[in-house]
Amino acid sequence: MIVQKFGGTSVADPERIRAVAARVARAKRTAADVVVVVSAMGGATDELLALARSVTPEPRRRHPRELDMLLTTGERITMALLAMAIRDLGVEAISLTGSQAAIITDTTHTGARIEEIRATRVREELGRGSVVIVAGFQGVSRAREVTTLGRGGSDTTAVALAVALGAERCDIYTDVDGVFSADPRRVPGARLLPEIDYQEMIELATSGARVMHPRAVEIGARHGVPIRVLSSFRDDNQRGTLILRRRHDVEQLALTGVAAESGHVRLTMRGLPQSMASVSHLLTALAEARVNLDMLVIADRPEARRQVQVTVKDESLPDALPVCELLTKEMGGEAVVVQPGLSRVALVGSGMQDAPGVYARAFAALLSAGIEVHAVSSSSITIAFIVDTRNEDQTVRTLHETFALGGQGA
Amino acid sequence: MIVQKFGGTSVADPERIRAVAARVARAKRTAADVVVVVSAMGGATDELLALARSVTPEPRRRHPRELDMLLTTGERITMALLAMAIRDLGVEAISLTGSQAAIITDTTHTGARIEEIRATRVREELGRGSVVIVAGFQGVSRAREVTTLGRGGSDTTAVALAVALGAERCDIYTDVDGVFSADPRRVPGARLLPEIDYQEMIELATSGARVMHPRAVEIGARHGVPIRVLSSFRDDNQRGTLILRRRHDVEQLALTGVAAESGHVRLTMRGLPQSMASVSHLLTALAEARVNLDMLVIADRPEARRQVQVTVKDESLPDALPVCELLTKEMGGEAVVVQPGLSRVALVGSGMQDAPGVYARAFAALLSAGIEVHAVSSSSITIAFIVDTRNEDQTVRTLHETFALGGQGA
Repeated sequence: MIVQKFGGTSVADPERIRAVAARVARAKRTAADVVVVVSAMGGATDELLALARSVTPEPRRRHPRELDMLLTTGERITMALLAMAIRDLGVEAISLTGSQAAIITDTTHTGARIEEIRATRVREELGRGSVVIVAGFQGVSRAREVTTLGRGGSDTTAVALAVALGAERCDIYTDVDGVFSADPRRVPGARLLPEIDYQEMIELATSGARVMHPRAVEIGARHGVPIRVLSSFRDDNQRGTLILRRRHDVEQLALTGVAAESGHVRLTMRGLPQSMASVSHLLTALAEARVNLDMLVIADRPEARRQVQVTVKDESLPDALPVCELLTKEMGGEAVVVQPGLSRVALVGSGMQDAPGVYARAFAALLSAGIEVHAVSSSSITIAFIVDTRNEDQTVRTLHETFALGGQGA
Repeated sequence: MIVQKFGGTSVADPERIRAVAARVARAKRTAADVVVVVSAMGGATDELLALARSVTPEPRRRHPRELDMLLTTGERITMALLAMAIRDLGVEAISLTGSQAAIITDTTHTGARIEEIRATRVREELGRGSVVIVAGFQGVSRAREVTTLGRGGSDTTAVALAVALGAERCDIYTDVDGVFSADPRRVPGARLLPEIDYQEMIELATSGARVMHPRAVEIGARHGVPIRVLSSFRDDNQRGTLILRRRHDVEQLALTGVAAESGHVRLTMRGLPQSMASVSHLLTALAEARVNLDMLVIADRPEARRQVQVTVKDESLPDALPVCELLTKEMGGEAVVVQPGLSRVALVGSGMQDAPGVYARAFAALLSAGIEVHAVSSSSITIAFIVDTRNEDQTVRTLHETFALGGQGA
């Protein structure tokens, strides 16, 4: 059994829907069972959101339940049309809503989490020989309320269904050929990766590679279901990129890829007391304001006052700034300095721990390229650099070249 | 408690939806409980149908289940938007799908019948003080499949809900001021009827008055729930037309109104054997081909062969003609003559039985107006005339004037 997921650009119009139908019909002839997860037709969700905004100023905040009711129509339209197109090819197909497929979520409208998938109905329909098409992005709470999964929802539906059904693989069809060592539009030498480890994919996705949502990859990682990313615009012989648990050996390249994301801003708080409590207060307050931190830098200065810098995404600034200002004032600090126009560039690779000198080589290369690094952070498989957005492309290219991610030997 | 239903033109755009929200909020302040039934935004269902047709040639015939899945998104969009707009006015509101409102239907996709409404959830939400908005036109089968009710579906949902909830009244908001003695666009003297009997309304609706679907009126008649037809474009003080069980007294006008519908065709079969069996065969075969007859005329001719004429709607011709041709041939008759371009004009009034000479006055008036009547049929409350479509308007006006339906005394 395989699960195939088609995103918005893959089902953007009737012609594309028929092309997807043909692909699904071919898969059904070679695989035993096929489950298809669909997104709303490209642009449909934005149109529904615009419609909601033309009726009410802040639908997401004020009417989350009704917004979910509205937005879930997008996937229903796609799945019904796709079922018709597949049936026209002589292959039995049936579409199921999140509710009919028993994708049970918690009650958090516009950002629900899947709690359980009771795949009885899906299995029944598969048992009748049908291709089963499931609406992505949506579920139903135990009180039978319609919910949506928020960002990366359709990918999440697909991988979670693959787990629940014990599928052999989850194929994510997109508008790109797979996962690259860097964005091929920016780095001409970028290489299509034949495979990548779950954790590396999560890092790349978190760092701006838009090909798949990290949330879905995490589910795959937790349950060990292989995920393949490939293009709905290419023929069936393509390989795409396989995301799986990868075993490293000495011959393997240490580094996998580089990804970048603009739209970051740094807040600098000076003159704070040099105590753990001050930082702890700040982190607690930011968490309560639901601000995700990209990076935290603590610098102690000779005059025994502390400087704390946090980097957040632009959209978090309205939540983060008042918190930082209030706490800085309370702790007797100076004014908060806001520094916008920053990008976060992440160098990702599971083998990084075993590859000595990555840090040093990266800094040397960026220095000689004249790029100023404002901050840096690292995890076991990532080094992330904060740079000015105007230097983002060059940072990506420099790192890609320095570590020969295009494949010419590290 | 009242049930209010708003059709497609009443919720055609965000501005209209906000206007409906204001009306509902005012009703909530004066009535104890308000249940609202909505159609898809004007044109939305046609757009979804066009989308289906751009994917597959005959969605209704080939993929009825998936078409229902597709079309039911229309009402969901309206109800979510309306719930947002009502909540913005400080009145609690919640939207429920046909499934959530437990509108249980049979399994006939694209033309399901309501079997039962389990209004538990609706009552719960009313108990919390919410306005409950229910998607019209849709239901759910016992196997939890999404169904649609077919023609007149939203009106049917509204009246059936009013019955199930024991509502005081069902208000049907449309784009006209109520039910008129004739189409006011064609007959300048047409009169807004303050009230009308269920059966008269069913006859007018069946005869081309588009204001309400006869199916919904039948449910109201069976359970004695008063239905009011009024305009969503007028203020709250309008009276509209009340549809109810009317008691007739001698002072009352015998006739209520006149309605017309074009698009009829007559099939004449000559030279059939003069036996009941021939007509019976024909009627059975037509019923099996699902052809609804408007009118049946049997004329015996001197030469002992029978002539049978049936009048059907144009859309039934492809089903009816082969049946008529086959049977005519089997029974040794002549070729079937097809006569298109006909209209059916119906004069309706519960008091007709008690009003002598209606037939005679009608024929005399039509004769002096130079209108040829091809066929006539009558029931206890209707006389229907088949005329050429080019004479339809004049027939309506002549009958309206002859029987003083505008109110200047019969």
